[in-house]
Amino acid sequence: MSKPELRHDPLTDRWVVISPGRAKRPDERNGEQRPCPLCRGNEDQTPPEIFAILENGSTRKDFRGQDCGDWLIRVIPNKYPSLGIDHSSDKRLGKRGIGLFDRMDGYGAHELIIECPGPEHLEITDRDRSTESKIAEKLFWLFKDRVRDLSLNPQLRDFLLFKNYKPEAGASLLHPHCQLNSLPIVPKEVAEELALSRDHYEEKMRCLLCDIITQEVESSKRIVLESKNFVALCPYASRFAGELLIAPMPENHMHLFHNTPDDLVGELAGIFIQTLKKLKKFFEDPPYNWVLHTAPVRFNRKGHGETIEDDYHWHFHILPRWTRIAGFEIGGGFYTNPLPPEEAAEGLRNAGI
Amino acid sequence: MSKPELRHDPLTDRWVVISPGRAKRPDERNGEQRPCPLCRGNEDQTPPEIFAILENGSTRKDFRGQDCGDWLIRVIPNKYPSLGIDHSSDKRLGKRGIGLFDRMDGYGAHELIIECPGPEHLEITDRDRSTESKIAEKLFWLFKDRVRDLSLNPQLRDFLLFKNYKPEAGASLLHPHCQLNSLPIVPKEVAEELALSRDHYEEKMRCLLCDIITQEVESSKRIVLESKNFVALCPYASRFAGELLIAPMPENHMHLFHNTPDDLVGELAGIFIQTLKKLKKFFEDPPYNWVLHTAPVRFNRKGHGETIEDDYHWHFHILPRWTRIAGFEIGGGFYTNPLPPEEAAEGLRNAGI
Repeated sequence: MSKPELRHDPLTDRWVVISPGRAKRPDERNGEQRPCPLCRGNEDQTPPEIFAILENGSTRKDFRGQDCGDWLIRVIPNKYPSLGIDHSSDKRLGKRGIGLFDRMDGYGAHELIIECPGPEHLEITDRDRSTESKIAEKLFWLFKDRVRDLSLNPQLRDFLLFKNYKPEAGASLLHPHCQLNSLPIVPKEVAEELALSRDHYEEKMRCLLCDIITQEVESSKRIVLESKNFVALCPYASRFAGELLIAPMPENHMHLFHNTPDDLVGELAGIFIQTLKKLKKFFEDPPYNWVLHTAPVRFNRKGHGETIEDDYHWHFHILPRWTRIAGFEIGGGFYTNPLPPEEAAEGLRNAGI
Repeated sequence: MSKPELRHDPLTDRWVVISPGRAKRPDERNGEQRPCPLCRGNEDQTPPEIFAILENGSTRKDFRGQDCGDWLIRVIPNKYPSLGIDHSSDKRLGKRGIGLFDRMDGYGAHELIIECPGPEHLEITDRDRSTESKIAEKLFWLFKDRVRDLSLNPQLRDFLLFKNYKPEAGASLLHPHCQLNSLPIVPKEVAEELALSRDHYEEKMRCLLCDIITQEVESSKRIVLESKNFVALCPYASRFAGELLIAPMPENHMHLFHNTPDDLVGELAGIFIQTLKKLKKFFEDPPYNWVLHTAPVRFNRKGHGETIEDDYHWHFHILPRWTRIAGFEIGGGFYTNPLPPEEAAEGLRNAGI
């Protein structure tokens, strides 16, 4: 079987992973797998642990043993990775041009972050109030730590931390987990935001997302939650009913998620989990994806002296999933949203949690 | 209920339709609707006919009667349109800036093209050989005619002709049909191709897709079908297993689909239907979307004297749909494809139909 590779399409400026073998991953969408490979006690069914937060509050790195049943949150490599850090032995990652096309080896990291030990599949929104905030803070601290750790690999450039909640949002395992990809290229959605943020900065000498948040906080119509340093809002041109954006306030502009000061992690985790609970309450537990967009590392802009420090602003998108993505969306990049974001924000603001 | 509007997101340069009421459309995904509103005999359940091709070979325009049971292919407005040509009484379409945001009235056309009269739900790929090519040619002639007709409306700028085949690809009605949207803005996926095609032309003085097709025909590895004037191939960086692109050969470079000469329509319909039949055979009748990308009309490029006539090249994308779009795809714009396009092309080339 050939190894995965990254290929670039010149007509859409998109990198795609061609990953033979990826289709073999288990799929619970037609009936849940038993026993659950992500539950505590079944560690022998997964690749060795990368990182864990233990019951006693301590952390553990690169544990190679089997008897590791004392974890609360656990990070493992994806058993069916679309990219692998062993997928290139070449320092230049086998980068080649083939006429108009570009390719490189399918180098990258693909990790699973298991959010609870089971056997109950407790989402972070399902815990009782006394443990929820503690676990949420640990989880966000771990997100930061994993991204920072991967940022030290000189071959990697950007990070995609995301969650698929429920099968309708693409989850293939029902045990609560999220995923972290790290890539030698910048994913298209982030690359587009980087270019637009740079254009705005060149014209105004200000960060685009700082300007958007300032305008939104002033009008307040689409704000769902505000804390001292973070805000949750429904974007003006939301693609999905109940779509949300969570980001640092302009006073706390940051381009790299993993540079968030440790003393703000609890506050971020708090606003994030409260927002998810409101979404769950008001929309009756919808499927959703969330994704972190953070600035790339080791990134030079063609023809631009400026760094991305001033103009890019990390944020989370939360995208509730209602209908199948069809030709209009996938072929046109065009979306229809039946719920004005002002109404969604009002409903979410008022949802008691 | 407020009227639909188009809103622009400055962070992603995406226009979104905010369309209250759109959620009310019928959905057959949880059991087929009876009687089928698109079948012959149930014309009173749909809005009045825009255009039809009749059994006797003639055409009919803007028929307002009920007794119209003699049609083979029929075009009607979508009963639950995301955009409407009656959704603005303002010559400037209510265009306004709201700080960093932009909005306009939800003006546009949204038509359904019903591909067969029923009661059998015969896809164009399911017909016997003797009628298939005749119907396919009529259908493509009608596509051209509808796009040309809409291009005469001075408020409209671009067109999205697409099909959702099977519920997994987003079909909400099972009667064979495709959809045509026409908009006062250029959809994101087309806008990106326009910008990349322009950049390539500025550097090389050649059309990007002409160059891609020339390279692909020379290597032949990813070619599925070639006719004198058209080609069907699996793109180098295909996002989906069995993804296809159908376009005019470079000798026949065209930027506007609706300018395709009448004497080439039969040839185009032929290669299109043969490609779909091969897809159906080799991949065992998969769900798919197809979408036409054609150049906008009344389109001026900021700061560029060149027209888009030389650099943009119309084409169809055919996108088989295998798994749910998840966070990786929707949040990163990043795709994993388990089947190298060379293998897909070989399988499709050899699939007997």
